[in-house]
Amino acid sequence: MISYQLNKKKILNDPVFGFINIPYEFLYDLMQHPWFQRLRRIRQLGMTHLVYPGALHTRFHHAIGALGLMQDALKVLEGKGQVITSEEKMGACAAIMLHDIGHGPFSHALEHSIIKDGHHERISLLFMERLNREFNGALEMAIKIFKDEYHKRFLHQLVSGQLDVDRLDYLKRDSFFTGVSEGVIGTERIIKMMNVVDDNLVVEAKGIYSIEKFILARRLMYWQVYLHKTVLSADRMLVNLLARAKELLQKGEKLFGTPGLLELLNQTCTLRDLSSSDKLLETFASLDDDDVAAAIKVWAKHPDKVLGDMARALINRNLFRMELHNEPLSPEYVSDLKNQWMKKNPDHKHLVHYYVFTGDTENHPYNPTEENIRVLVKGSAPRDLIDVSRELNVSVVTQTLTKYYLCYPKCLLNVSP
Amino acid sequence: MISYQLNKKKILNDPVFGFINIPYEFLYDLMQHPWFQRLRRIRQLGMTHLVYPGALHTRFHHAIGALGLMQDALKVLEGKGQVITSEEKMGACAAIMLHDIGHGPFSHALEHSIIKDGHHERISLLFMERLNREFNGALEMAIKIFKDEYHKRFLHQLVSGQLDVDRLDYLKRDSFFTGVSEGVIGTERIIKMMNVVDDNLVVEAKGIYSIEKFILARRLMYWQVYLHKTVLSADRMLVNLLARAKELLQKGEKLFGTPGLLELLNQTCTLRDLSSSDKLLETFASLDDDDVAAAIKVWAKHPDKVLGDMARALINRNLFRMELHNEPLSPEYVSDLKNQWMKKNPDHKHLVHYYVFTGDTENHPYNPTEENIRVLVKGSAPRDLIDVSRELNVSVVTQTLTKYYLCYPKCLLNVSP
Amino acid sequence: MISYQLNKKKILNDPVFGFINIPYEFLYDLMQHPWFQRLRRIRQLGMTHLVYPGALHTRFHHAIGALGLMQDALKVLEGKGQVITSEEKMGACAAIMLHDIGHGPFSHALEHSIIKDGHHERISLLFMERLNREFNGALEMAIKIFKDEYHKRFLHQLVSGQLDVDRLDYLKRDSFFTGVSEGVIGTERIIKMMNVVDDNLVVEAKGIYSIEKFILARRLMYWQVYLHKTVLSADRMLVNLLARAKELLQKGEKLFGTPGLLELLNQTCTLRDLSSSDKLLETFASLDDDDVAAAIKVWAKHPDKVLGDMARALINRNLFRMELHNEPLSPEYVSDLKNQWMKKNPDHKHLVHYYVFTGDTENHPYNPTEENIRVLVKGSAPRDLIDVSRELNVSVVTQTLTKYYLCYPKCLLNVSP
Amino acid sequence: MISYQLNKKKILNDPVFGFINIPYEFLYDLMQHPWFQRLRRIRQLGMTHLVYPGALHTRFHHAIGALGLMQDALKVLEGKGQVITSEEKMGACAAIMLHDIGHGPFSHALEHSIIKDGHHERISLLFMERLNREFNGALEMAIKIFKDEYHKRFLHQLVSGQLDVDRLDYLKRDSFFTGVSEGVIGTERIIKMMNVVDDNLVVEAKGIYSIEKFILARRLMYWQVYLHKTVLSADRMLVNLLARAKELLQKGEKLFGTPGLLELLNQTCTLRDLSSSDKLLETFASLDDDDVAAAIKVWAKHPDKVLGDMARALINRNLFRMELHNEPLSPEYVSDLKNQWMKKNPDHKHLVHYYVFTGDTENHPYNPTEENIRVLVKGSAPRDLIDVSRELNVSVVTQTLTKYYLCYPKCLLNVSP
Repeated sequence: MISYQLNKKKILNDPVFGFINIPYEFLYDLMQHPWFQRLRRIRQLGMTHLVYPGALHTRFHHAIGALGLMQDALKVLEGKGQVITSEEKMGACAAIMLHDIGHGPFSHALEHSIIKDGHHERISLLFMERLNREFNGALEMAIKIFKDEYHKRFLHQLVSGQLDVDRLDYLKRDSFFTGVSEGVIGTERIIKMMNVVDDNLVVEAKGIYSIEKFILARRLMYWQVYLHKTVLSADRMLVNLLARAKELLQKGEKLFGTPGLLELLNQTCTLRDLSSSDKLLETFASLDDDDVAAAIKVWAKHPDKVLGDMARALINRNLFRMELHNEPLSPEYVSDLKNQWMKKNPDHKHLVHYYVFTGDTENHPYNPTEENIRVLVKGSAPRDLIDVSRELNVSVVTQTLTKYYLCYPKCLLNVSP
Repeated sequence: MISYQLNKKKILNDPVFGFINIPYEFLYDLMQHPWFQRLRRIRQLGMTHLVYPGALHTRFHHAIGALGLMQDALKVLEGKGQVITSEEKMGACAAIMLHDIGHGPFSHALEHSIIKDGHHERISLLFMERLNREFNGALEMAIKIFKDEYHKRFLHQLVSGQLDVDRLDYLKRDSFFTGVSEGVIGTERIIKMMNVVDDNLVVEAKGIYSIEKFILARRLMYWQVYLHKTVLSADRMLVNLLARAKELLQKGEKLFGTPGLLELLNQTCTLRDLSSSDKLLETFASLDDDDVAAAIKVWAKHPDKVLGDMARALINRNLFRMELHNEPLSPEYVSDLKNQWMKKNPDHKHLVHYYVFTGDTENHPYNPTEENIRVLVKGSAPRDLIDVSRELNVSVVTQTLTKYYLCYPKCLLNVSP
Repeated sequence: MISYQLNKKKILNDPVFGFINIPYEFLYDLMQHPWFQRLRRIRQLGMTHLVYPGALHTRFHHAIGALGLMQDALKVLEGKGQVITSEEKMGACAAIMLHDIGHGPFSHALEHSIIKDGHHERISLLFMERLNREFNGALEMAIKIFKDEYHKRFLHQLVSGQLDVDRLDYLKRDSFFTGVSEGVIGTERIIKMMNVVDDNLVVEAKGIYSIEKFILARRLMYWQVYLHKTVLSADRMLVNLLARAKELLQKGEKLFGTPGLLELLNQTCTLRDLSSSDKLLETFASLDDDDVAAAIKVWAKHPDKVLGDMARALINRNLFRMELHNEPLSPEYVSDLKNQWMKKNPDHKHLVHYYVFTGDTENHPYNPTEENIRVLVKGSAPRDLIDVSRELNVSVVTQTLTKYYLCYPKCLLNVSP
Repeated sequence: MISYQLNKKKILNDPVFGFINIPYEFLYDLMQHPWFQRLRRIRQLGMTHLVYPGALHTRFHHAIGALGLMQDALKVLEGKGQVITSEEKMGACAAIMLHDIGHGPFSHALEHSIIKDGHHERISLLFMERLNREFNGALEMAIKIFKDEYHKRFLHQLVSGQLDVDRLDYLKRDSFFTGVSEGVIGTERIIKMMNVVDDNLVVEAKGIYSIEKFILARRLMYWQVYLHKTVLSADRMLVNLLARAKELLQKGEKLFGTPGLLELLNQTCTLRDLSSSDKLLETFASLDDDDVAAAIKVWAKHPDKVLGDMARALINRNLFRMELHNEPLSPEYVSDLKNQWMKKNPDHKHLVHYYVFTGDTENHPYNPTEENIRVLVKGSAPRDLIDVSRELNVSVVTQTLTKYYLCYPKCLLNVSP
């Protein structure tokens, strides 16, 4: 028997949104769980603080902020006549609290370094199912909502959609902590404009300008923050560092590290492994940014060239140069840099791929293959945002932007044409 | 002999940008002039406070804010190696302080009601020339800059261009006082990215995202604030009210009003009249929002139907309905409303044009026929923003958006198809 | 039969607190009443904008802000188990909306210039009673609460007490619009700490630091804003200006003015007159800042020395010097200044009291003769804030601070010892 | 030969104060030094984020913020006629950047756990001297200023005094990141009011209200943030945890940890040791929050009762209850709790002091034994703030507030009288 007892006392102080209530006793218990507390030690934006020194906020803070917005959104929808039961409310709240619980250390940056095919949403679901057992089924509804298996689809759409409280929180929060005012969005206004038609979330026509601004703000935050060259450089160097550590460990070398980190680096772990072994999940759930941070510091003194170089670069913020281009880089240009590096490091030619490397990165401000934002225009069925907006241009907004990057030590000579 | 003595003491407290210095003694004298003090009594956004109750800020406050940003911009450009003399600095500062001094009561709304062909920039220039005589030529440089006749064109571009400190101030200020967060722009960042190439203002490539956001914010502020239906309704009713007052006065009726207001309403005054008569300019310079506001209040009790109806509607905020359409309205629809009104007011059929009326309004977020924003990309000549930006789509951003409006009393039956 | 129908649609955008709901249909009707709309034309801080140019916010905005905080406070108290009926909620909301409705033009500055013994709270009650008749008794509860005749005294204390939502709103709002960060208070935190014991408002012990800060912030705002020398100078000159206008009118001179303003200046009107004549109340209710502002402008050209001097000084912001002292001024010092003035103005000696004048002004940050703020300490009866606080010192905080002022034209020679 | 070359390009984005310049090339080099970069990994407020989840900001961010304010202050003083050479400016900037560089992991909380008698200011000086050698004497002036050995004493007072930019930054920054609006101070206004008389820093009389507010804000931040019960509990448990680790290591047990942390815990290190051994200083300089954080996580699984209990409590935020009293606790009350604990843990009686413990903590909002804030009143020598202020009461503000604490597991029965 699940209790929906109201929790009148627990309030968190959030510099972004003010005081946030934890509305039910059960959610407070959830918040106290070690797996949720662990989110206090996983930063929302990984290495971004190397560029924006305020960006140290955590997944914990984001989850609580999104919980606050979920409550606001549900209140607005109730105010417009939706009947939402306590069970549904608690389910939606629990789902949003846990939507990112599957993130590992450094969030996106290391998403595939620790669990090979590890998409964090899939891992979040694993965690939720395990927690559901522990809490005797109290998360049934949350899981249904999270998996979009509940008939009131708007609850899922609030958790995960093109206009979910996840995005509403993180854009505003990231903007606040980085100090980049470009990401400021009219969260309150957007939520006031939400409504439900046929169990699906819609936005009232009056809110359309705010929505347009929200989509553009998201796009601009990509270029200014999420894909900032220096951040990208740090992220990629961290990936290389862990790849090298794995390589050394698997060759039998001894490295410093917390037992949990070493255990996971010592094997190639997949999502399937994680879902079939409680022990492995438990180990993964014990990791956070601190495990990696402490390892980097000690590895900075390790004699292995790659491990030492990468770790020192990260610890002292001597990062590689990162070039971003609209077109793939010419193979000649890349070879030239590789050759330069090998000439300078004749004994380590086989390690050049750790020092000169390329890749690409994508951004969809508004993904037309996902379910679209629907706008409620008076006197007609809800219409797709793209059809209603005069500001957003389909071809611009829905296009996938790809940037091609090239990363190499600053000592190499850039002979870019 | 003009003195460029520094003014160390005068500081204004601005809730938007913090403390603002008045950098030269002369600018303080200018600020003390009755014509500048009059800007304290002209609201930046006319009737907008009927929708956004905080939007009571004045042209005075805007001019001081823009003066603050001008100082910041000049400091940034000096920091990048531009040599700017005291004379040029003071000229640019004076020009931005006075750029809006030609605005009359209710700014844009009544721009053509009082001076028939009165564009405020032309009137500002008249004022500046008159002030220049009064201050013995101290405004020579300011006038050259204002008229774009000075060879360092970037000084003019900072006063009046697609990226001038005028816009940088008003977007942020209007956003602050309305509470519409959509207009928040990265003013500080944009200014830090300014530079000069061949005497022209450019923006460094790193600032491009902020510029894109600035253009979009401006566009969104148009729809959300500047062309808000209710504001537009109030503006148009005010225009009608003054047109009616003029009509009655010219028929010989007596109306309450300050002497200055009555004098100007009693004639049809043009820019040429204003420039050829010092006395007329003086009268115009005596008017501000308060003259019109007091008249509205007294006219609300006047027996003339139009005068009384319009004045009461404005004073008690019972405004007409305003419809905005993307296409011109069908003549049948408009006739139908007119007929309805005439049926209800059989004795006043000839006044129907005061009650049911149409018009259109335009918006160019970025006007390609004006000089464009130029972006400094490393290793090449400055390029046009539109060519460099991947976010802005020429066809979208440069297009002129026209909205067609229809305004009529709420008691009429909307039978819109 | 009164309807407590919820009003789901009406929302105002407040830059200070965000969106504010108008919770009941009836309150929306009240807001639409011309007497309430008139508050849009009465500034909260009179002439303060001459020093802090952003301080143009109105009594309307303040009333709506306080209405928002009242709703928050009631929700918090309900959350702690208080049962509050719809009738009580609407009553408290209406009472706070109307608590300042009796203010006349320029609020406090002219409080006694227009109605001789006119304390605005007494006039507010007159307005409320008249509105109650007009709305068929819908304001009964609001009036009981306002007069502290309702047994749930906490409702009155929220409207008018040492910790009412009136103060909570105006401190924060005045701080916001002036840009004086000293007045920023933890409104949200204070409201979250409210509770009710035996029908009286108390603050939970955890909130004590915020309360202390609130009291100190109020005190500091007095010195920095409310009693700013230049503001005080403008206020007193305005009082003198109206006194002179009254004098001239009563001598039979003709002056420009709106009919309402002239009618009230032509007589000496008392509270008793106001309460016994509906017509007089109606006239008073027709006045706002605009009547006075328009008169000042026209009077600036009037040949009477006092009227002209004062009006020009106000319109062009050439204000008299204001000295503030902790002790009463020496009669010799004042005489000396008066003599100087008379020497310069030999034909106007009898007018010297308009030009050199003294007075005093008081400030109680926390008035121990009013009902005190009571603090709920676990396990005991509520105790007086002064007894519980270690920060506030009775002798300091409860003392009445008196400042003595002296005002005179800047051209006079200050020979202050 | 030291270069004072201006650094035009380096700008950091600070959500608190906006963009901050690094004014000289040399300061940029200093910022790049690993010892300064290490401050990125030491939080300003230790464990405070367990209560205020936003409070993750670092000593790095604080040092940069204070550097920004130092530049503002120097500009204001120059504007008032002080001649300040480039050498002096760079010295003051370097001194403020490095003023906290001697902090170890978790700042104040572990100040005495790692270096027995380690006051961070003394250690900062050690670091500065070592850096001065490394940078060939470039820090001579900074060290003189830091040690108050330079004749322009105001430079030292800006770095370390009752009104230094250190406090101005941290109060505002801590307030921003915790979300506690009580700490918001008028930084900009205070700096504008600074002046110098006889080489000493003074505040102009107009700034007195802001200073009063600053002192009170500091006091209130103490109670609300710095000495928050839960934070204090976490701090003390962390101290106990490290004490236990030391005890175990010195008994010869093996514990997980980074080499640097283990090296320092394995000995009892004093300031004298640190100053006489470069190697030891280097080891200390390698430590930061991450070393301790990683150890806590691994120790949470250690079989030692104390180590495991404390580590788990910290990692999962199951903290002991903390009582704060104005008087020392009665020995009976403490004994009773100790007895309860020993009864429940009969095998660990000798460890009771880790579980039930007392102590005290002090706070001086304004320390009259330090040099006081001096106020410049027109026409007289600068006077002591306490003598000039009518708001601050000597006996209240200068008194030392002592709180006595008692900490114990929540499972024990509180039988407080």
